Amino acid sequence: MDHTRKVFQISYDTNHPFSTLTLRIGILLFPGFQALDAFGPLDCINVLSWTHDVSLAVIAPSLDPVSTKSPMSPNALGQNIVPTHTFDTAPPFDVLLVPGGLGTRGSSAPVLGAIEFIKTVYPSLKYLITVCTGSGLAARSGVLDGRKATTNKMAWEEITRLGPNVHWVSRARWVADGNIWTSSGVSAGIDITLAWIEEVYGEDVARKIADGMEYTRHTDASHDPFADLYGL
Amino acid sequence: MDHTRKVFQISYDTNHPFSTLTLRIGILLFPGFQALDAFGPLDCINVLSWTHDVSLAVIAPSLDPVSTKSPMSPNALGQNIVPTHTFDTAPPFDVLLVPGGLGTRGSSAPVLGAIEFIKTVYPSLKYLITVCTGSGLAARSGVLDGRKATTNKMAWEEITRLGPNVHWVSRARWVADGNIWTSSGVSAGIDITLAWIEEVYGEDVARKIADGMEYTRHTDASHDPFADLYGL
Repeated sequence: MDHTRKVFQISYDTNHPFSTLTLRIGILLFPGFQALDAFGPLDCINVLSWTHDVSLAVIAPSLDPVSTKSPMSPNALGQNIVPTHTFDTAPPFDVLLVPGGLGTRGSSAPVLGAIEFIKTVYPSLKYLITVCTGSGLAARSGVLDGRKATTNKMAWEEITRLGPNVHWVSRARWVADGNIWTSSGVSAGIDITLAWIEEVYGEDVARKIADGMEYTRHTDASHDPFADLYGL
Repeated sequence: MDHTRKVFQISYDTNHPFSTLTLRIGILLFPGFQALDAFGPLDCINVLSWTHDVSLAVIAPSLDPVSTKSPMSPNALGQNIVPTHTFDTAPPFDVLLVPGGLGTRGSSAPVLGAIEFIKTVYPSLKYLITVCTGSGLAARSGVLDGRKATTNKMAWEEITRLGPNVHWVSRARWVADGNIWTSSGVSAGIDITLAWIEEVYGEDVARKIADGMEYTRHTDASHDPFADLYGL
């Protein structure tokens, strides 16, 4: 069975799944990113890489390991992830993933660096995908102005204030507006990534990844029990 | 509202959520562990640590960063996680988390080391929690003998063969048998961790973590559409 990758125009053949073109992904990390915001999407991308040609740059303020622990939560636990590139050494890529987390708050040097990085690379991207409060960083960079977007529902008031010119959608598991895809909180990152994989590689590829992860997808972008829970 | 932590016998008070006792968790990593198998549970534990006293040891064959990329999949992507302890330097802990992944296969030194580590520490544990094919490592260590357990449904035949004296349960999101909790594949690690948090800290704590992660829990341990999908 063949699929055409709608955007990258690569023929997909389950018997010869590797293509001649590489999909180049970057993920932006900063101290206090939420672990599942990053590793939900990355697990999907890792499994995709078992059958498709994908490269990944893990981009951070420096090459020092980046902790999921926020500087604002000194008693919290964290795990340390090793970056592959800095803001200055990042290679060209097609897709930028931006997780959220407590570490998106404030105006520390890593936060301001992340916002500047999004602003700088956006014009060269095929897609920008944010998870949870990662849309707050994108909003502060200006790239969401005039676009529809969503964010974490518990942090709704705080994050939406950061983007007065963004058309915020309160009831959404995720929102796709052109080449900018934004998701609701934390675990919604898995659904937006699988929806994006479906858009680019076809439904069969997305379904096989979800089945392998034993994940029951939310395939309706407007499905959002957490908008009700948080009174939006 | 007060809850009694059923096992650790610590009074839980939402106004004063920190206790005087620390819950000590260890997670066992090895090359080729599946990212979401580890970071689904760890995200739950990280959020728990915002309001409760929890320590974490990230345990691996050496202190070198551990890749999620399996040595058996040279073209696949991986991310590198920094351990805090080796098998030899791990501190005492109450709960051991064991993820699965392609890296559980075979008899490389890290795999045999992981199996031996589970066997050695199990008698001192309050709980052993495995995710996905992590139950294959536990089965090979012998600690599952005579117990009910489950595993990844796509890898069912391969993993269950490793434990001929285990009472494998084919239709289960997770199985709790005494102090050994085993889950089905990948994303089921989130459900088993939240179920375990409910067991230890109460339903209110588990629900608040799930709501913060915008995760719709599977709270029925026998809910398993993937048993049907894979013909079990």
